[in-house]
Amino acid sequence: MRVAVVGATGYTGAELVRLLLDHPHVELAFLSSERSAGKPVDRVLSSVRNHPAAAGLKLRPLAELSDVDMAFGCLPGGELPGRMPLLAERAKHVVNLAGDFRLTDPVAAARHYPGSASWTEPFSYHVPEFGEPGERFLNLPGCMAVTSIYALYPLLAEGLVEPDPVVDAKTGSSGSGRTSTEHPADRFGNFRAHKPHGHRHGPEVAQALRSLTGVDVDLQFSTHSLDVARGILVTAYSRLRSGVSEVDVKRAYVKAYRRTPFVRVRNHGLPALKTVVGSNVAEVAPQVQGDRCVTIAALDNLVKGAAGQAVQTLNQVFGLPEHTGLPFTAVAP
Amino acid sequence: MRVAVVGATGYTGAELVRLLLDHPHVELAFLSSERSAGKPVDRVLSSVRNHPAAAGLKLRPLAELSDVDMAFGCLPGGELPGRMPLLAERAKHVVNLAGDFRLTDPVAAARHYPGSASWTEPFSYHVPEFGEPGERFLNLPGCMAVTSIYALYPLLAEGLVEPDPVVDAKTGSSGSGRTSTEHPADRFGNFRAHKPHGHRHGPEVAQALRSLTGVDVDLQFSTHSLDVARGILVTAYSRLRSGVSEVDVKRAYVKAYRRTPFVRVRNHGLPALKTVVGSNVAEVAPQVQGDRCVTIAALDNLVKGAAGQAVQTLNQVFGLPEHTGLPFTAVAP
Amino acid sequence: MRVAVVGATGYTGAELVRLLLDHPHVELAFLSSERSAGKPVDRVLSSVRNHPAAAGLKLRPLAELSDVDMAFGCLPGGELPGRMPLLAERAKHVVNLAGDFRLTDPVAAARHYPGSASWTEPFSYHVPEFGEPGERFLNLPGCMAVTSIYALYPLLAEGLVEPDPVVDAKTGSSGSGRTSTEHPADRFGNFRAHKPHGHRHGPEVAQALRSLTGVDVDLQFSTHSLDVARGILVTAYSRLRSGVSEVDVKRAYVKAYRRTPFVRVRNHGLPALKTVVGSNVAEVAPQVQGDRCVTIAALDNLVKGAAGQAVQTLNQVFGLPEHTGLPFTAVAP
Amino acid sequence: MRVAVVGATGYTGAELVRLLLDHPHVELAFLSSERSAGKPVDRVLSSVRNHPAAAGLKLRPLAELSDVDMAFGCLPGGELPGRMPLLAERAKHVVNLAGDFRLTDPVAAARHYPGSASWTEPFSYHVPEFGEPGERFLNLPGCMAVTSIYALYPLLAEGLVEPDPVVDAKTGSSGSGRTSTEHPADRFGNFRAHKPHGHRHGPEVAQALRSLTGVDVDLQFSTHSLDVARGILVTAYSRLRSGVSEVDVKRAYVKAYRRTPFVRVRNHGLPALKTVVGSNVAEVAPQVQGDRCVTIAALDNLVKGAAGQAVQTLNQVFGLPEHTGLPFTAVAP
Repeated sequence: MRVAVVGATGYTGAELVRLLLDHPHVELAFLSSERSAGKPVDRVLSSVRNHPAAAGLKLRPLAELSDVDMAFGCLPGGELPGRMPLLAERAKHVVNLAGDFRLTDPVAAARHYPGSASWTEPFSYHVPEFGEPGERFLNLPGCMAVTSIYALYPLLAEGLVEPDPVVDAKTGSSGSGRTSTEHPADRFGNFRAHKPHGHRHGPEVAQALRSLTGVDVDLQFSTHSLDVARGILVTAYSRLRSGVSEVDVKRAYVKAYRRTPFVRVRNHGLPALKTVVGSNVAEVAPQVQGDRCVTIAALDNLVKGAAGQAVQTLNQVFGLPEHTGLPFTAVAP
Repeated sequence: MRVAVVGATGYTGAELVRLLLDHPHVELAFLSSERSAGKPVDRVLSSVRNHPAAAGLKLRPLAELSDVDMAFGCLPGGELPGRMPLLAERAKHVVNLAGDFRLTDPVAAARHYPGSASWTEPFSYHVPEFGEPGERFLNLPGCMAVTSIYALYPLLAEGLVEPDPVVDAKTGSSGSGRTSTEHPADRFGNFRAHKPHGHRHGPEVAQALRSLTGVDVDLQFSTHSLDVARGILVTAYSRLRSGVSEVDVKRAYVKAYRRTPFVRVRNHGLPALKTVVGSNVAEVAPQVQGDRCVTIAALDNLVKGAAGQAVQTLNQVFGLPEHTGLPFTAVAP
Repeated sequence: MRVAVVGATGYTGAELVRLLLDHPHVELAFLSSERSAGKPVDRVLSSVRNHPAAAGLKLRPLAELSDVDMAFGCLPGGELPGRMPLLAERAKHVVNLAGDFRLTDPVAAARHYPGSASWTEPFSYHVPEFGEPGERFLNLPGCMAVTSIYALYPLLAEGLVEPDPVVDAKTGSSGSGRTSTEHPADRFGNFRAHKPHGHRHGPEVAQALRSLTGVDVDLQFSTHSLDVARGILVTAYSRLRSGVSEVDVKRAYVKAYRRTPFVRVRNHGLPALKTVVGSNVAEVAPQVQGDRCVTIAALDNLVKGAAGQAVQTLNQVFGLPEHTGLPFTAVAP
Repeated sequence: MRVAVVGATGYTGAELVRLLLDHPHVELAFLSSERSAGKPVDRVLSSVRNHPAAAGLKLRPLAELSDVDMAFGCLPGGELPGRMPLLAERAKHVVNLAGDFRLTDPVAAARHYPGSASWTEPFSYHVPEFGEPGERFLNLPGCMAVTSIYALYPLLAEGLVEPDPVVDAKTGSSGSGRTSTEHPADRFGNFRAHKPHGHRHGPEVAQALRSLTGVDVDLQFSTHSLDVARGILVTAYSRLRSGVSEVDVKRAYVKAYRRTPFVRVRNHGLPALKTVVGSNVAEVAPQVQGDRCVTIAALDNLVKGAAGQAVQTLNQVFGLPEHTGLPFTAVAP
């Protein structure tokens, strides 16, 4: 099937190109970049510069987009909405990896994703593990948001915890996108709080959990910055309701993720960046003591948190086995 | 004054030697190591191998300990108690940097610090910012514990929050001591949960806060491992009591740390490892939104969390200005 | 085809398991480990613990080895020779990734690889790009050695340079194997000379270049240690012979690597770890100024420098397309 | 004495402020920054934000410069020459840490340091270990250059080697200055060749060695980029002249650095970043085998390679003990 990557030179776009080059049923029909238009993709994206299938592919301005089966939106936030008329005309399906259409509350959307209001046809929020991708326009979750959702969903779906969890998220530097301006010497060896309050993934998590479980969550969501390129690890703290046991908790996670090849409940070995980076797997593990539940969840923000879940969605939309072209192993050590 | 470092080749002992070499009023009279006995210290400790004052200093077996004004215990946990009879005979003051005598509850002490019961004369738990070092035998706090205490003390002392905080601690690899066996390739680029429950610094924090504030804290204390050599950052989550405002919170921190040169409340710029590593400063910053308070605290585990607070204690005991020989600046970037 | 990994829990063995799990024509028939015998492989090797195909595979003592088409030796140096009688009986082909049979000079072999003399049937030294794997017993090159060979071969094969090059090699920490005892805090942020003289890969490079080009090389080979988990970068310095031009040099590299899918001459963008880590590609680039030629070469020591070249060899032996099951892209950023 | 730091917010300026805050005989009389003029220095420079002596210091536009005993130039290359008329009027001594006046050959100077010709009064090139700072205007060496000079000087001064050495330099990210635009995710885990040929420190090394030893050096100088914040390690390769022994080499280094407190010849333990970062020490070690000499040298580019050697120069100019206010120990691990 013919696929377009709109915004192929950012981190998520580049990662999508990297994965799709090895997908057995995909033709990379169109790769857009305004800044690098005309250049061969293997001259611009260093991660794929030695792949034989990348030879000959050129980056082109979006205006030249031809008819495709699926277009992936990998533009910086705010840039896709204005281009949707073109995409809607040329692409049978549009899957947006940026955040433009994640928030349904128009006030929150306007605050966190300015410009999203310029396109009004509905996008459906799609987490590959929670529902079929029925709509034509899909928006994928944010990387820290989806990690948090994986961590908390089973607890809330089964009504096991008080609805006021704390999520302490830690993320690598590629999560901020290629336009970040932090100097490598300042990032090196550092670890710092990024947003103790007010990160835009907070409302997204609350919205998704409410939509999936019916529970109105009073969420404390704080983010931190790691000096690694890839990876997110979330530690979610919640209080068990009276009478809830460790067995109930373990059972809820097993039930929720029994049939999800890419969300795996760890019983042996806690989630860690090194066991997920490079793979499309999210690891989740609840740890109970007394009435406290600490859930650890980890994934590679560029794979399972972005490009990998996009490929997973493509597989779902076109009826392919869900893992087609997706890695199960971590590049470790 | 004449000083002994007992266990001079571990990470905390080495750091103490490093700091004391530049202390204007200290003579490094005795440096013990059983394994490296007889070797020059500048052959064994690479951090000081270019310091002219290290030339000629030799490591010696503890049995040769001569009379000193202060002996610092830097042995692995469990090793000091059996040697206390000798130290009590030769040293006017003993300051232990290991954990042997931190916990007053004998059951907890026996569980977390086996061997501590073999010495029965009392050690006093001493945080330099909270009280005078009146006793002859002092035990300093653990590095993650003291960071957490700095973060939570003002909130509990003023009764501003519910007494059930969550502490999410992240620490570098030197915190585990020189005998850790993790391979550098496994640590590299990793971030992982270490102990979601049951870390021995948890009871220490609860004990210290109860002792300092009178509040019985129901603490959730979880630890994580960073791929950095030095540094601890703690994120503490608490709920404001009804009627408490952000101004109350800010005021409590200013009050608590008005006269502490080495615990600094940040109003501009969040605490980070890069602004404390190499210095003896602990940074603390509370961030309030609604009824949620998130307090960030950071310090260098080998300096302010260990060897630096030991020097600070020495200064206090001998009536020197508290900052004598201690760095205020961070080695950054 | 049925394959055995002998020593499946070291870094190279684990990486081989990781790659072979996704190889379309390989059955992982036998995975040996003495220490972890009886344990499921996905409990011991964290990089593959989420791969569905790893479920059910058990580690077993080597004595239980059954008949296989190919056995890969991934034991620590010195351990394979004594086990060769068993392997020769059960495996149609044996490919050794350790160094036991690399050096043909018996004095050098005995010095650098003690124990190798206990097996006397010949092993053939096999670099996948330089010749067919005709023999039954093959020994693959060392990771720093093969990087250096790729860098220097075209210059010497065409007689373009004086035969006294300098090779300055830099390598990550996984290259030292899982039994290294350096503390992560000591490795972190460090860069250091490892062996300015006398590294055992030096004689291997000289031997291979003599064998491939007929030139007796007077090689200066020095190694350094990087704080990264994966990757080798080699900078090779040589002097052009009189009358040799930059064009001659470029032409020699193109000629040497015209048909090697996994050794790629870079004309745009210098080789770097980030463009090879995770892939089976070695990048090579000569840079000429005046009569000085500086050749940069880089590869992932665990993939192209070990497990990947082993899979490449398997593909060659069994007549599969050389790239079957091997990654062309780098996991970057 | 009253001191000005001109360009106090770049990496070298900030490091100079950090060191001078603890210098017992210096008053930080003037700190310039055009972009941050008016702001308190402890709001802008995070490394000193907890130093009591930084409180109250303000950044000011250079035009307000008052009379000082010494002004340090820490501006980006090309910016000092145009400001020299003002500095010459207000400062008794000017010490430039940037590269403007390093090269005496006007063609090379114009090529590598555009703008330097606009000031014509002579600057003297000053390496603290090689000569008295006699002139009023001094230019300090580049960080990679001075490391290479330390490595090669004894060999050339004593005529022990052929004059065509190879220098393979590796440097951390702070060396490129605060205006570098590499993304931290791209730097992370990477190691790459930076300039195999043509780096501007190459001609500087050749010029300095010629000036110090009278030998015309045909130098191969190549640079590489490490993912660390601080530190330079240089590996210098040379060929011993006929009849020269290892003892001759060792003797030459001892002779050259007998009286240099901050350049130390290592006989035990090779130079490494971790043993110099944070200190003002350069470590040097020659390793001889046959007729090959490999010299390793390492230093902290911001301390001994920039701000530390500036303080050392200040001490020399004003007749203070050379080590006043300068650290001998490394912040390790």
